[in-house]
Amino acid sequence: MSDKIELGNASDFHVHLRDGAMMELVAPTVREGGVSLAYIMPNLVPPITTIERVNEYKAALQKAAPETTFWMTFYLSRDLTPELVEKAAKEKAIRGIKCYPAGVTTNSSAGVDPNDFSDFYPIFEVMEKYGLVLNLHGEKPSTKIANDTDNHDDSEDIHVLNAEPKFLPALFKLHQDFPKLKIVLEHCTTKAAIEAIDEINASRNPQDPITVAASITAHHLYLTIDSWAGNPINFCKPVAKLPSDKRALVDAAVSGKPYFFFGSDSAPHPLSGKARHVGVCAGVYTQSHSLSYLAEVFDQKNALDKLKGFVSDFGNAFYGVKKEDLKSQQQVVLVKKETTVPELIGEGELVVAPFMPGEKLSWGFEWV
Amino acid sequence: MSDKIELGNASDFHVHLRDGAMMELVAPTVREGGVSLAYIMPNLVPPITTIERVNEYKAALQKAAPETTFWMTFYLSRDLTPELVEKAAKEKAIRGIKCYPAGVTTNSSAGVDPNDFSDFYPIFEVMEKYGLVLNLHGEKPSTKIANDTDNHDDSEDIHVLNAEPKFLPALFKLHQDFPKLKIVLEHCTTKAAIEAIDEINASRNPQDPITVAASITAHHLYLTIDSWAGNPINFCKPVAKLPSDKRALVDAAVSGKPYFFFGSDSAPHPLSGKARHVGVCAGVYTQSHSLSYLAEVFDQKNALDKLKGFVSDFGNAFYGVKKEDLKSQQQVVLVKKETTVPELIGEGELVVAPFMPGEKLSWGFEWV
Repeated sequence: MSDKIELGNASDFHVHLRDGAMMELVAPTVREGGVSLAYIMPNLVPPITTIERVNEYKAALQKAAPETTFWMTFYLSRDLTPELVEKAAKEKAIRGIKCYPAGVTTNSSAGVDPNDFSDFYPIFEVMEKYGLVLNLHGEKPSTKIANDTDNHDDSEDIHVLNAEPKFLPALFKLHQDFPKLKIVLEHCTTKAAIEAIDEINASRNPQDPITVAASITAHHLYLTIDSWAGNPINFCKPVAKLPSDKRALVDAAVSGKPYFFFGSDSAPHPLSGKARHVGVCAGVYTQSHSLSYLAEVFDQKNALDKLKGFVSDFGNAFYGVKKEDLKSQQQVVLVKKETTVPELIGEGELVVAPFMPGEKLSWGFEWV
Repeated sequence: MSDKIELGNASDFHVHLRDGAMMELVAPTVREGGVSLAYIMPNLVPPITTIERVNEYKAALQKAAPETTFWMTFYLSRDLTPELVEKAAKEKAIRGIKCYPAGVTTNSSAGVDPNDFSDFYPIFEVMEKYGLVLNLHGEKPSTKIANDTDNHDDSEDIHVLNAEPKFLPALFKLHQDFPKLKIVLEHCTTKAAIEAIDEINASRNPQDPITVAASITAHHLYLTIDSWAGNPINFCKPVAKLPSDKRALVDAAVSGKPYFFFGSDSAPHPLSGKARHVGVCAGVYTQSHSLSYLAEVFDQKNALDKLKGFVSDFGNAFYGVKKEDLKSQQQVVLVKKETTVPELIGEGELVVAPFMPGEKLSWGFEWV
């Protein structure tokens, strides 16, 4: 490969930028990481469920990062109505709706019961009609642990390791009930999830557009359960799983299959929320070096020629991002250039530990 | 059950008391937890491999906790010789030798290669002859993760979840090669380990003494992977596993089988070693409330009548503890009495967060 690789306009289709001072710190780092468009998660406190709040939030983001394009989402909850979703879609206030199972991750307490989506079917009908994307946090909540072995079937247990595989039947059912609804299974972490997405797309008529895709983060291409055992900086939801799962994710990312694309799930927390003995905040912050983390893995797999598809072409095609939608037309070119990840970003009371602090990465980029 | 249950002289057959100021803080809490005899792990820095250091350490412990009985161990390493082990056995300086696979837990860097114990066979012969106990930390070290799927067999991966099952063949081989050597598989965390110990004992002639046993901690009767995901206070090695594993441990503890007994693996670290975003120290501190944690679980299982066997009879019989060995003849009586676990023990710079801080427990005890 050359030492310069054109990547086009990279998009990150799963971004947490928070609000207030944290937002002001991290919103500019979308572009510092090499990304043109950020698809913004709605899990503020309270969750974003009105057009007014979408517009306010987007304006604040835009002010903090004028050259970055922000695509917004609603938080799926009982506060939404089909009428509201239709209006938001027509105005292009939102591009999708994020579905959180109640209680599985940061600010998800207003989420839905993943055992039964039927109350939301009228909303999904509107989404299907207007091409809005349903973004699924694909985990079932962990079950309370029974101590009674006599009357208990082990296969009923749900815990952080099997929470994603246990969710997959709900994905299949949603796709069956809404075959034209665009669905993204967000931040896949298991071989089972990759196989499910492959299976759904294998049964698609090749002439038909992709309707079910998956996003893959940068950090899940590095981490396994051993990485977060004892290192809260690497603790996120869904948790990183086994080595075999990690290999399946890396293979999917470099596969060139157009239904696997980048969504960082970069999720900043103040250092004080990570360096704790109880109640560590779930989330890995990768925004400031997103393309560099990815390039490292693609390079190791001799697959740098597949990186443009993963970070630009596939996601932009799925979401229908057009050149004229972008605030800046500048494109990103990967450049072989060693950089060291800082130990912390920010200063004073608000500091965030980035993924792989102090480690060296081989690739940077230029805007052209 | 009555509200008072005689438990005899309880022993904790897996105890970390550290040295220096930490030792002075935690050594007295053996008795505060209701325990008469503590079997002391040798993983100081440097590890304990001489009779002089055993005796010095024991004297310091005894000074800090005059009524507690301390039984001492060597750290299995190349510093030991069969002659030294024989001398230590004859003097009763030690009662066993702890084997750490290199690199799996706190201060284990001087440990052995669990793929090949044959260099230590001359030492095991001496141990067998003198009735010394071999205490096994039964985990294989995690493997480096291959990213190459083409030339990799998933079943070769070793990670924190399967590290104990992967060790079990080494246990079977040791028992086969030294059928009379007393072996304890320490701090079992998996259903597979429980089944292995059951299997070995099922093939024992009932008239023969038990030679292979397992210790079970208090915290592993409570914790699963979900408990330490995001809560470094609950992070220990071996890590707590799946709900099905936890149920198997609880069932073994309350089974009344004499080859399962208590070893707390209470492992104190300063709070600063737990409240970190990277490099959290592995270990759960349970010493100060050990019997209360256990009683809670046995009570939930309607098995308080099995607690005396687990904490007193079985371990004392296996190790050959005699009444006259004890510094204090006082016995412990479980009493129904609500207590709240403190948020921290110690003060000033040296504080330790105990297991289940702030939670209520239903049983205390009296010395009689």
